[in-house]
Amino acid sequence: MPELRKDPITQEWVIIATERARRPSDFTHLTIAEPEKPEYSPTCPFCPGKEQLTPPEVLSFRQSRDPNATDWWVRVVPNKFPALAIEGELEKRGNGMYDLMNGVGAHEIIIETPQHNQEPATMALNQLAEVLWAYRERYLDLRKDSRFKYILVFRNHGKVAGASLEHPHSQLIATPMIPIEVVNEITGAERYYSYRDRCIWCDMVKEELRAGVRVVNRTAHYVAFTPFASKYPFETWLLPIEHHANYAAMTRENMEEFAGLMQDALGRISRCLNGPPYNFAIHTAPCDREDSDVFHWHMVIMPRLTIAAGFEMGTGIYINVTSPEDAATYLREAVANPVPPTSTTREVTA
Amino acid sequence: MPELRKDPITQEWVIIATERARRPSDFTHLTIAEPEKPEYSPTCPFCPGKEQLTPPEVLSFRQSRDPNATDWWVRVVPNKFPALAIEGELEKRGNGMYDLMNGVGAHEIIIETPQHNQEPATMALNQLAEVLWAYRERYLDLRKDSRFKYILVFRNHGKVAGASLEHPHSQLIATPMIPIEVVNEITGAERYYSYRDRCIWCDMVKEELRAGVRVVNRTAHYVAFTPFASKYPFETWLLPIEHHANYAAMTRENMEEFAGLMQDALGRISRCLNGPPYNFAIHTAPCDREDSDVFHWHMVIMPRLTIAAGFEMGTGIYINVTSPEDAATYLREAVANPVPPTSTTREVTA
Repeated sequence: MPELRKDPITQEWVIIATERARRPSDFTHLTIAEPEKPEYSPTCPFCPGKEQLTPPEVLSFRQSRDPNATDWWVRVVPNKFPALAIEGELEKRGNGMYDLMNGVGAHEIIIETPQHNQEPATMALNQLAEVLWAYRERYLDLRKDSRFKYILVFRNHGKVAGASLEHPHSQLIATPMIPIEVVNEITGAERYYSYRDRCIWCDMVKEELRAGVRVVNRTAHYVAFTPFASKYPFETWLLPIEHHANYAAMTRENMEEFAGLMQDALGRISRCLNGPPYNFAIHTAPCDREDSDVFHWHMVIMPRLTIAAGFEMGTGIYINVTSPEDAATYLREAVANPVPPTSTTREVTA
Repeated sequence: MPELRKDPITQEWVIIATERARRPSDFTHLTIAEPEKPEYSPTCPFCPGKEQLTPPEVLSFRQSRDPNATDWWVRVVPNKFPALAIEGELEKRGNGMYDLMNGVGAHEIIIETPQHNQEPATMALNQLAEVLWAYRERYLDLRKDSRFKYILVFRNHGKVAGASLEHPHSQLIATPMIPIEVVNEITGAERYYSYRDRCIWCDMVKEELRAGVRVVNRTAHYVAFTPFASKYPFETWLLPIEHHANYAAMTRENMEEFAGLMQDALGRISRCLNGPPYNFAIHTAPCDREDSDVFHWHMVIMPRLTIAAGFEMGTGIYINVTSPEDAATYLREAVANPVPPTSTTREVTA
């Protein structure tokens, strides 16, 4: 008998379809291995030596002060084809019965490493910490712009997950309104808070650590688990165990600890599912409530193993073919990828 | 400058990304032609002669009364691997801080034609009217079951859109709650109704017919247009011009007229975009408010030309790379596929 589970935050129902139950090996034929990538690709605009091909960088971690030198290890540049434009005002207006405004915002690319063939699951741990630190720096800069109400960091890994360029990169978008998904989370979290006077994510973390069945791994201050009402097979959440609303309030020490858990989780997903395409997104509090008692920042990792089709699009109800309890078991059993030693490993300087 | 447009019903913002503007020819390389299909496939469980391979049919339009005979032209069978199970009670319960219930519902397959190589855009028009009539018959039967609060008909066309079997078929799911997407539509429509005392879809239809720029085609009683805040390139809505909440209240005559407009729209999409994968879903009023003044039934056709990635999943804001005005222009210019004469064309008998 399939189960209908309710997301305690958004109140969305999810179908856990036992009749169609899928183990990791049922998915691995889908994750057609992309051709092995070279460490340097002469045609890649993000590889070192092509710095002048990107729009001028807005942040880099590098030895020199030359923005077109090749001595960087993380670089952030505006997207050449931005979904939202950095210049201009919103000019809210009507058109017949409809409402619209200018697509003002920021759309940046975080080039995660000079090496074309790395990814967060495999790069040196302090390199990943640098990437996470770059997210924070860009957040702290963009939040000063009063036009922006929300800043989302996300990553598309693999073509099936929407990545159009091979070189390892994540993205950041600043939006002039709080996105509907975040509004839905806040509305749900406020409903819970008004009833119990507690943060719902704090309660979920306690519940998950108590029950144990959906926990993938944990460190002193962070935990990774597969949520009770997972929409996607092997969906995994990472979040601080203590209450923190704002991703960008993390200390350098926190960041390194979190990078370790993130690499562990991504490594287990990669090992378990043969390097699947995935997306992740960091849900942090809106810019105007960074100290919220209600919101608790979290990273959502969404492997792309199944296709949302007419049913999901028409109802908003997702059919998940692997229960989160099974997924957590498989992920706990998987050995995280060992971190390969790399010549770009260096002391963190930022 | 990209535009942010607000869906007047759900209040969701959509980005119309002019910087990335795409014409039909920019998509056609994506729609890799699937191999040409035979009229009959010996390995297909839905082709005539394999009736005993499906669960026993719940409806068929056929000459004889023999459920395993091959003389049918539309057949409806339970899904062999249902997302929701037809037997049992909900047994709502808790699990720690979480809520769940049994996955009770109905999940049926509407086999649209005996011919393996047909599709709604190409089948005989009276055959498509029969398929639409089968949707109605199944709706009227399932609505009698008080466990079901909503009935959704949908179709997945092509592998990219989630179709796992080639044979032309649509699906129906009955759910024990009103799905979140429908709740969001109703909430938005009620907000509008309480402000203006009018159905929002009725107003949209008037606005679209007045403006004209997004209309694809119309008949006496139905209209097809690309919505102002389209989430997907070439998204197309079909709906009655007069207020009707309930799809299943259509007369046979209406059904034939609607089938004509639907085939015209699907034919234009197919011609314009080289037979793209698509989903469609029929949003009708919930079972308990079939005479609603607030809800207006509509069919949503969603070509699958782009990939929802980390940004869409994290924010709920869709990036649409073809403005609905451009899409409507391209679709108006496209010649709908001529309906090929077929030997299975027959008088409608149901």
